[in-house]
Amino acid sequence: MTAKKVRTIEELGEFGLIDHLTSGFTPSQKSTHLGVGDDAAVIDHGSYLQVVTTDMLLEGVHFDLVYTPLKHLGYKAVVVNLSDVYAMNAAPRQITVSVGISGKFTVEAMEEFYEGVKLACERFNVDLVGGDTSGSMTGLVISVTALGTVLKEEIGLRSGAKNNQLICVTGDLGASYMGLKILEREKKLHAEDPAFQPELVGYDYVLERFLKPELRVDVLLELKEAGVKPGAMIDISDGLSSELLHICKASECGCQVYDDRIPIADETKQVAEEFQMEPLVAALHGGEDYELLFTVPISDYDKVNAIAGVSVIGNITDQIGKALLVGNDGNAIGLQAQGWNAYSSEQDD
Amino acid sequence: MTAKKVRTIEELGEFGLIDHLTSGFTPSQKSTHLGVGDDAAVIDHGSYLQVVTTDMLLEGVHFDLVYTPLKHLGYKAVVVNLSDVYAMNAAPRQITVSVGISGKFTVEAMEEFYEGVKLACERFNVDLVGGDTSGSMTGLVISVTALGTVLKEEIGLRSGAKNNQLICVTGDLGASYMGLKILEREKKLHAEDPAFQPELVGYDYVLERFLKPELRVDVLLELKEAGVKPGAMIDISDGLSSELLHICKASECGCQVYDDRIPIADETKQVAEEFQMEPLVAALHGGEDYELLFTVPISDYDKVNAIAGVSVIGNITDQIGKALLVGNDGNAIGLQAQGWNAYSSEQDD
Repeated sequence: MTAKKVRTIEELGEFGLIDHLTSGFTPSQKSTHLGVGDDAAVIDHGSYLQVVTTDMLLEGVHFDLVYTPLKHLGYKAVVVNLSDVYAMNAAPRQITVSVGISGKFTVEAMEEFYEGVKLACERFNVDLVGGDTSGSMTGLVISVTALGTVLKEEIGLRSGAKNNQLICVTGDLGASYMGLKILEREKKLHAEDPAFQPELVGYDYVLERFLKPELRVDVLLELKEAGVKPGAMIDISDGLSSELLHICKASECGCQVYDDRIPIADETKQVAEEFQMEPLVAALHGGEDYELLFTVPISDYDKVNAIAGVSVIGNITDQIGKALLVGNDGNAIGLQAQGWNAYSSEQDD
Repeated sequence: MTAKKVRTIEELGEFGLIDHLTSGFTPSQKSTHLGVGDDAAVIDHGSYLQVVTTDMLLEGVHFDLVYTPLKHLGYKAVVVNLSDVYAMNAAPRQITVSVGISGKFTVEAMEEFYEGVKLACERFNVDLVGGDTSGSMTGLVISVTALGTVLKEEIGLRSGAKNNQLICVTGDLGASYMGLKILEREKKLHAEDPAFQPELVGYDYVLERFLKPELRVDVLLELKEAGVKPGAMIDISDGLSSELLHICKASECGCQVYDDRIPIADETKQVAEEFQMEPLVAALHGGEDYELLFTVPISDYDKVNAIAGVSVIGNITDQIGKALLVGNDGNAIGLQAQGWNAYSSEQDD
């Protein structure tokens, strides 16, 4: 019998839990440049910095093997980590991949998974240097850690946004979420009627965005070539809304973004219509876009505007913590974080 | 219908699987000094090296919450990784801790786990710099990555053993395995009769060795003070036998160890007797000792002999791949790897 209040993790909330559990930890190593709280931790190596990021992917929570080919899963498990490295404006160098494998997997199945890992390694010029392989009593468990390097003056933190800076986003948003919705729908129909054949034709774009996300290395290179140094930078994994709030919190600023500036592909709009869903909701809260969100000085407007695949969607304000979405009518509503993974978050995401 | 042979993971075996899956990966980064195949990967930072190691711990495979307090689990999850760092003769600096938490856990339970993590961080002067927290559909999933640094000339690899070097081991072996046996016995008795009260008094030493393993930082410091540079070094996580074979393979040598030289505590012998088990079997194959196994030049015999907690158990030979256990009678038998986790191994362990 105890009077001590026992709280569930849901009550505390995802970010609350992380803050709570890690609050008692104070870095003591000189080389620890930045701990919990950005896309990656940062380690000081003198003339350059090293970023470290890790992601855990659990079957039934982060992926569904019913509609996720293992090769795609291996590729994506690496890519979501590299996305955090690039979001620090760093170049990925090494990864470790750990897997817990349940009895249902054959060697061939794991080969497929590692083919995807290898594809990502080759594509982004990253070395697999270690990991851990063990049996799992339950589903497939994947944990990837990525290391990268960046010159000190080039690091892209969440905390670098300044008043009046422009807010930019790469590519388009919400497609991945609509791809997931299609796959979930076809899975459900198939479960109800085993003779049902999933109809995936015509959904290539949104499916590809979900199953095989791209990383915007091209834009990072173009920014560098144009001599543009981002202020704050973050990758969009939990949805635009959530990431804007992260930047506002870390940079102690506010922001306003214009709803008609938020890039959404026509394919995404069409699928959203099928689901009678507002495309903007998918863009704001869908997540898994793995596009980059960053700020630049207003004087760089012409330069970023000239880069294909970059949209200027708003600007940073001095109203601390206030993230506003401004509509066509000039009315503004406050943005709130609503990651679509009800309880799934990252300390360094 | 396919004629392709589908192999199960058991058929290939644990180390076979790792070799097989990672064989197609060739490091291309200049900074990758060493990839898969030692206690940790090694990254070159110019004047010093950085080691990277990662371990995944899965409920039901690596730990049983019936008899493992969460605080101990948090401590041990960190310590098993630091063990790999120390086994490279490196000093640990940073860790990331990722957890997948199923619905049955309260915030207080996770606080206990993180108290253990914190204890290990404080004790070994390591910073928690990141991680990932998510829900889990199944059991508790833990993945820890540790980073450490070491001067280039001081790195301790598995491949550093030379013919005629002495083989040394710290502390005593087999105790952790006997602690596990006690806990498993009491769990079984309790399951058969819920009124049964586990009887753990008198087993303090072996239980402590299993639940809260120590790391031999003391010995590493004394070796350094004595000016002894180990040839090969590895931590004993899968049992002495398995680790000796790792050294022989990596160093392209053989070894012979003397059964009466292998250090086994009296408490371990007593518990082994209770289970009608040969204590030497626990020492050779038990695992989870987290002691250090290393080689030194024969000229350093007096120096290592003077260090408390170091036993010289044999020597390296030039008979490649031949690991022999020599008995009192002078007869020798070949050592074989028999990790007690039937299917559980590590690419960088």
